[in-house]
Amino acid sequence: MDCNNGCLEECAREARSHAVMRTLKAKDLIITPATTLKEKPDPDNVVFGTVFTDHMLTIEWSSESGWEKPHIKPFQNLSLHPGSSALHYAVELFEGLKAFRGVDNKIRLFRPSLNMDRMHRSALRATLPGFDKEELMECIQQLVKLDQEWVPYSTSASLYIRPTLIGTEPSLGVKKPTKAMIFVILSPVGPYFSKGTFKPVSLWANPKFVRAWKGGTGDCKMGGNYGSSLLAQYEALDNGCQQVLWLYGEDNQITEVGTMNLFLYWINEDGEEELATPPLDGIILPGVTRQSVLDLARKWDEFKVSERHLTMGDLTTALEQSRVKEMFGTGTACVICPVSDILYKGETLHIPCMENGPKLASRILGKLTDIQYGREESDWTIIVS
Amino acid sequence: MDCNNGCLEECAREARSHAVMRTLKAKDLIITPATTLKEKPDPDNVVFGTVFTDHMLTIEWSSESGWEKPHIKPFQNLSLHPGSSALHYAVELFEGLKAFRGVDNKIRLFRPSLNMDRMHRSALRATLPGFDKEELMECIQQLVKLDQEWVPYSTSASLYIRPTLIGTEPSLGVKKPTKAMIFVILSPVGPYFSKGTFKPVSLWANPKFVRAWKGGTGDCKMGGNYGSSLLAQYEALDNGCQQVLWLYGEDNQITEVGTMNLFLYWINEDGEEELATPPLDGIILPGVTRQSVLDLARKWDEFKVSERHLTMGDLTTALEQSRVKEMFGTGTACVICPVSDILYKGETLHIPCMENGPKLASRILGKLTDIQYGREESDWTIIVS
Repeated sequence: MDCNNGCLEECAREARSHAVMRTLKAKDLIITPATTLKEKPDPDNVVFGTVFTDHMLTIEWSSESGWEKPHIKPFQNLSLHPGSSALHYAVELFEGLKAFRGVDNKIRLFRPSLNMDRMHRSALRATLPGFDKEELMECIQQLVKLDQEWVPYSTSASLYIRPTLIGTEPSLGVKKPTKAMIFVILSPVGPYFSKGTFKPVSLWANPKFVRAWKGGTGDCKMGGNYGSSLLAQYEALDNGCQQVLWLYGEDNQITEVGTMNLFLYWINEDGEEELATPPLDGIILPGVTRQSVLDLARKWDEFKVSERHLTMGDLTTALEQSRVKEMFGTGTACVICPVSDILYKGETLHIPCMENGPKLASRILGKLTDIQYGREESDWTIIVS
Repeated sequence: MDCNNGCLEECAREARSHAVMRTLKAKDLIITPATTLKEKPDPDNVVFGTVFTDHMLTIEWSSESGWEKPHIKPFQNLSLHPGSSALHYAVELFEGLKAFRGVDNKIRLFRPSLNMDRMHRSALRATLPGFDKEELMECIQQLVKLDQEWVPYSTSASLYIRPTLIGTEPSLGVKKPTKAMIFVILSPVGPYFSKGTFKPVSLWANPKFVRAWKGGTGDCKMGGNYGSSLLAQYEALDNGCQQVLWLYGEDNQITEVGTMNLFLYWINEDGEEELATPPLDGIILPGVTRQSVLDLARKWDEFKVSERHLTMGDLTTALEQSRVKEMFGTGTACVICPVSDILYKGETLHIPCMENGPKLASRILGKLTDIQYGREESDWTIIVS
């Protein structure tokens, strides 16, 4: 399309300007409060990500002067140059975490530093600017504090926090943006499973679509990973399934489920009780819930915990030999999502997840929500207010 | 991250609404002219894609009512909901074509129907709405006509046309957008090579980064393909090269160059004179210039013309045996861009492109620009004004 002329000079100009770059500082925060406040929805009846709070955070950046002062202001549309690189070349990334109102009425965030670390890694992969992770976290906490009445008074609902970093370079050359913006929006979200009972999902496993590949961006939370996945999701629905089981490679490795990481709890080939999830080999998103499940299970030390490759062949053999106990997805929205069936090569493979409790999935969900809602002390949470 | 709850009901609602969907119609076009006109730049001194004309085209879509009336209005920022799916999940695609002012002062577009076809294919891949391609083309022609004084009075410059289609779904579920927008902006662009002499590029070939993969979106012009490519481009610069030579697979297939398609003109393994480019096997963007080079060369019928796989092994063997004549990228911005060197596994492979004229590259460039600037009659152009 174009041949990136002019970018060498711009790189040089950017390098020169680094000397005067301002860094992101929470103490510079400007707050413009909303003059009218919106009505808050019943969290039990809200569709994920459709309702937003009264305020948002924006922080603009340019290669010439660095980070501007963070600004909390009324939730409003963004005014973007139509050449913005996020709109043409997906120079963009996001994060997702939640604020929980605990049984003690305190508001907690769950392992937010893992989100900040991943956001920073995604930024470098996308050639978007780096930032001070703790300063951004402090700005986000200020935003949550201001909109704290939006954190549902419920131990089955929460306030979803969506930090986003987009390229706002106002020109069409395919290049590192000279302008960018962080924005953070908040959305109250209800219980994923009503009344605390799991609703397992059925999966469509077909190598026709591939989510991520070695040398790509599957291990970063970049926008492009998601837009490219939508068509597969609709083929899954057309095939009577609810989610995609993403396969990879000639041996049909099992990688992720929909937008979640994947766990298999089984008796492995060597007869060992094992909780397994694919390793972070470049095509797997390093999920915060994934990490927390691994950390918990390793601490329990009751069965083998592995980051290892799993193929459809491994799974079908194990199913034939009745070695599969549970299979579930993990993610910020649902925490744990059991799998009941997989449609693969025209056959439905039944996963006896619900028949087995799901004992492990329930235990993990219980433990994580105990921490999130303050029923259990943990250094995995930080208190906002 | 989330588990797509609520999307089944939305699909059903969308299906019901299809009965009353309005289609995109050029006759509905509303024109709001700019009240002040900007100064036009000297096209010889403008950096690609940095200057925009006085007007833009926007067309909004919703799953409930279909396409709104197309609107040509003064060039201005877009006002976007901060939850817009283009900003989070890269639900977005674009096109690139040019308007040329011919030697007869007529303004021509070059094979625009190929861009409309590709744009429509990209839309389906991205789960963005389809549209009537001829009606959109007519709206774009109206825009170019209104801003026709921006088409440079030069046979080495042109007006770059950038149609874009973005998801504007204002919610965070990962799903097919229920709102979307086409926008088209125009940018005058200068000669890629000043004074008509080629400036060949050096390439960095390293399997560390992979542009596209089978089961992905490399054959569509979706934003995610580009944002994920930027880091590799900067590693190429760090290694003293100007562009990335994108490799694929265990055998290091040669696929694309930067944001261009790739051609090799050589004596092949069987001793035949051949112009070869990788086949459209799912990982190659079907470029309009690529297609035009193939069409011209096949019409000339003077040497073998192949869409075939080419590996780094094929290339290095051919270089050792002095069988390589020319190698060049093709794209809308530069038309033809010769390759001089490839840095591969620590060694610089010299491509004797300039030493060989480049005879074929020059001939193709001459032919294409003769058609674009009206020096030669062709059914590949349509006259706008």
